[in-house]
Amino acid sequence: MTNLRALVFDAYGTLFDVHSVARRCESFWPGKGALLSQAWRAKQLEYTWLRSLMQRYRPFSEVTRDALAWACDSLELPLDEHKTKALMAEYLALSPYPDVREALEKINPGKRAILSNGSPDMLEPLVQHSGLKFDAVLSVDEVKIFKPAPEVYELAVRRLAVNKEEIGFVSSNCWDALGAKSFGFTVFWINRFDVPPDRLGFSPDKTLKTLSDMA
Amino acid sequence: MTNLRALVFDAYGTLFDVHSVARRCESFWPGKGALLSQAWRAKQLEYTWLRSLMQRYRPFSEVTRDALAWACDSLELPLDEHKTKALMAEYLALSPYPDVREALEKINPGKRAILSNGSPDMLEPLVQHSGLKFDAVLSVDEVKIFKPAPEVYELAVRRLAVNKEEIGFVSSNCWDALGAKSFGFTVFWINRFDVPPDRLGFSPDKTLKTLSDMA
Repeated sequence: MTNLRALVFDAYGTLFDVHSVARRCESFWPGKGALLSQAWRAKQLEYTWLRSLMQRYRPFSEVTRDALAWACDSLELPLDEHKTKALMAEYLALSPYPDVREALEKINPGKRAILSNGSPDMLEPLVQHSGLKFDAVLSVDEVKIFKPAPEVYELAVRRLAVNKEEIGFVSSNCWDALGAKSFGFTVFWINRFDVPPDRLGFSPDKTLKTLSDMA
Repeated sequence: MTNLRALVFDAYGTLFDVHSVARRCESFWPGKGALLSQAWRAKQLEYTWLRSLMQRYRPFSEVTRDALAWACDSLELPLDEHKTKALMAEYLALSPYPDVREALEKINPGKRAILSNGSPDMLEPLVQHSGLKFDAVLSVDEVKIFKPAPEVYELAVRRLAVNKEEIGFVSSNCWDALGAKSFGFTVFWINRFDVPPDRLGFSPDKTLKTLSDMA
């Protein structure tokens, strides 16, 4: 890590626990909270990949709302405007994982940024609510395609004005870590849930259990 | 359908039942066949989208093998070279759905083709084994990107020499149907399993329960 001049973090799933929405889901549909939260997240990612390939980019807030509607449909859970608003609002106040705050204080090789699929209307309130501090909060909305397209990782190089060889990228989403590795970053995969690594022709430079292990 | 001069079919999931591998999975890992088959298929699709976005195309046979290895890992099912070979061989002899043979005899607006993610090393033996007849069997391998990228659907226009307005596209995979719709085909979604339509900004021209309903 000694040659790194910037650390770039993924937001959803890495710094912030997307499944912290499960509690609110559970309050609306008792017994189904975890299941809905999983289906929602899986479809949300799927739609980012599909829309990118179709060349039909829409902001993450819209994709997330569409994915929620599909997930509720598929589980036969009645969704209305009130519930949609309440669940989308949860996304603006996701909990950071318990290891995040302390780890971010200890590790700081220079610049520190977020690079996220999130659209500014979701990302800015989320970061502000968390109180976490970054030199830059970068959204794919600027390049109108989602991760793991190389254009997204290139955005960090351009906006931070740091060579890609000097950027460390941190993600808990293995496919995102490997997309960043394919692009040319030094990659730290935070394997929070002890899942097998994805087989996409690349390996992370370092696999860690929590963000604290980076310090 | 009267203005259509060609019908283009998706292969996996539309003409051929990818879950016909579940029996062989079950024989290797009793009680886990259906679960493995589902996880394998989901990861296979995920890898096609991710590799396309990463601009790291590899043939479907390799992607399918990688997805099998990941799925077995995630379910903690021991996989060896013998089992891998046997399961990959199943993919060359997938069963057509029961409605396919008769429906294909009844509907024929002119040219009839397959347009598939499958690489030729998987697709050609599969079609030959089935005995089904087509004017063309087209693989994304020619354009080195997977569905639903527009380049894929464009391949059918080019190779069949039929305008896109005159091509009917048939798929059971809703996201594939909507990718084709976004490109400009007339689209028939065969919703075999009564799932909710995907929310990707487009709708199929026609939603049917089986291929027989097209006749």
